[in-house]
Amino acid sequence: MQTLKVDLGERSYPIHIGEGLLDQPDLLTPYIAGRQVAIISNETVAPLYLERLSRSLSAYSVISVVLPDGEAHKNWETLQLIFDGLLSARHDRRTTVVALGGGVIGDMAGFAAACYQRGVDFIQVPTTLLSQVDSSVGGKTGINHPLGKNMVGAFYQPQAVLIDTTTLNTLPPRELSAGLAEVIKYGLICDEPFLTWLEEHVDALRALDQVALTEAISRSCAAKALVVNADERESGVRATLNLGHTFGHAIETHMGYGVWLHGEAVAAGTVMALEMSQRLGWISAQERDRGIRLLQRAGLPVIPPAQMTEADFLEHMAVDKKVIDGRLRLVLLRRMGEAVVTDDYPKEILQATLGADYRALAQLKG
Amino acid sequence: MQTLKVDLGERSYPIHIGEGLLDQPDLLTPYIAGRQVAIISNETVAPLYLERLSRSLSAYSVISVVLPDGEAHKNWETLQLIFDGLLSARHDRRTTVVALGGGVIGDMAGFAAACYQRGVDFIQVPTTLLSQVDSSVGGKTGINHPLGKNMVGAFYQPQAVLIDTTTLNTLPPRELSAGLAEVIKYGLICDEPFLTWLEEHVDALRALDQVALTEAISRSCAAKALVVNADERESGVRATLNLGHTFGHAIETHMGYGVWLHGEAVAAGTVMALEMSQRLGWISAQERDRGIRLLQRAGLPVIPPAQMTEADFLEHMAVDKKVIDGRLRLVLLRRMGEAVVTDDYPKEILQATLGADYRALAQLKG
Repeated sequence: MQTLKVDLGERSYPIHIGEGLLDQPDLLTPYIAGRQVAIISNETVAPLYLERLSRSLSAYSVISVVLPDGEAHKNWETLQLIFDGLLSARHDRRTTVVALGGGVIGDMAGFAAACYQRGVDFIQVPTTLLSQVDSSVGGKTGINHPLGKNMVGAFYQPQAVLIDTTTLNTLPPRELSAGLAEVIKYGLICDEPFLTWLEEHVDALRALDQVALTEAISRSCAAKALVVNADERESGVRATLNLGHTFGHAIETHMGYGVWLHGEAVAAGTVMALEMSQRLGWISAQERDRGIRLLQRAGLPVIPPAQMTEADFLEHMAVDKKVIDGRLRLVLLRRMGEAVVTDDYPKEILQATLGADYRALAQLKG
Repeated sequence: MQTLKVDLGERSYPIHIGEGLLDQPDLLTPYIAGRQVAIISNETVAPLYLERLSRSLSAYSVISVVLPDGEAHKNWETLQLIFDGLLSARHDRRTTVVALGGGVIGDMAGFAAACYQRGVDFIQVPTTLLSQVDSSVGGKTGINHPLGKNMVGAFYQPQAVLIDTTTLNTLPPRELSAGLAEVIKYGLICDEPFLTWLEEHVDALRALDQVALTEAISRSCAAKALVVNADERESGVRATLNLGHTFGHAIETHMGYGVWLHGEAVAAGTVMALEMSQRLGWISAQERDRGIRLLQRAGLPVIPPAQMTEADFLEHMAVDKKVIDGRLRLVLLRRMGEAVVTDDYPKEILQATLGADYRALAQLKG
């Protein structure tokens, strides 16, 4: 087992990573203050792991709330089911909310914990690669609004994160690939040697090699923890974690939540960020192609939806949270392994990026 | 004009109190970081003051969202109208949300500011006595749930609070009295000389004497700011501000939100707390009666609803946020001008308090 510490002063918390941690209650009990625990899960994950986790927490008064699965349900109506469950069971402000599932469950359970009685304790037990390397670290919680993704939420830190790597054995391959999009992102934005490691191990990761997975998760969490430590509330460097996300969110919003997986949209968005960085002269065509090839080998889409026009992208990106006083800031690569956040670029280059022939780029790498 | 400072480190903020402050934009502009402002008001207050405030803020890009009036609308559906307005107008994370109205508007606009894009700036412009002396100080925001009042919310501090005392000229007398319930509360819990001052000035306050109102608001805000400074997140002494509220919330929940005004329910709840403190031998019958008489002179109800049984009270109080691990903590008076929070009392005394003859007590004072 490896343990990382996310250092945020009095809101610091540990991330435990290893095999079979679901069966080790001693890892969680130090972080549960009261006697009540509410496990929030979904219809897919609950049948696989809810009973095991409940057994580990049998020293407490445990309730569970099982939500419908998927990004399409990341809305207020589903969030209400959590509040209904907590209030019906009379959970008080010393309850601990435990998120058992992927990023959607983590975002909703975390936001529910942030709001319930103005804030109760929260523990993350992420069961997808994406949530293990991304959404369980950093304190972002929230729900979607019909007019934009993650528009309603809170910065709220968990007491602890427990990552049992064996939960990936039941993850559909498409979701494993979606998680790899975020793993590859860390290499692109801040860790060029990790990119090389990933090129060597991407096949092992897709084959669920536990040693490779543990290393990839640990390295990704460490990279994210480092960035979050430096900038908890996303005023500066933290925004680089959103490489590919502004383009990606536009894809998700336009296609309807849940049609493209988040990681898939990020992958196509990352290709657009690579293309724009190349057009700005910051990385070479060979470097751009290196990124595209690695995303392809991870089983990810590298071509934005054919039906999306430049106008579609611009419309959706205009409500992005990175818009400050009307100017759209983008995360781009100054070089491989170094991202920057900037609104200082010619509009024509953004337009050319939105209109580029990604089908041709993808085939060149095929 | 008087200015108090609520001292919370980097989240400190000023409270300006005085006549005609709505027309003084210089008091607000130092606290508006971006170019966008969203004024949240309701159907009652907007016709009276929205245009004046908008004119004061004409240097900014201002939108307004006018909500239906009343506690009955303090729910998610109404909150969504704020998010809809912000997103439709493409307000970004540098927007400032301004609450123009009473406590319900402050609670909802504040919670919307806490959640919108995970947190934007917030300014309070309270227009009722209750919100001026209570809900605009202390950072509590939130909405109701069918199973409990204020069950979903956030601790979120404003950038500034602007109190224009002339807005009370348009306040219905019943709401002025409701505000006086909280004013009297400060005397009871921490400022016995203020009780004496109130006994001398309660008629002037009800007659809207501006000098008396300014003094009462200022003294109330100072008392609350002092308590909040000492205990921002309500782990200890801050809970004394809830004198009468646990009983009062039970009344509000049972009768349906909006049937009793919050201050009215708090007044009847305060009488119950006085009665219980007397039964515990902490205050004399004369002191209890002194409190009841002052509440009556302020135009407030001092008898709980006749149809509420002991069981009704106990059921509603069981979901109160002051329940810790199954024990109900109550705010009681150790002596006049000193409140304590305790779960150390004989159950029989609580039961006797719930079953006391408040009609007789009220008539004795009549």
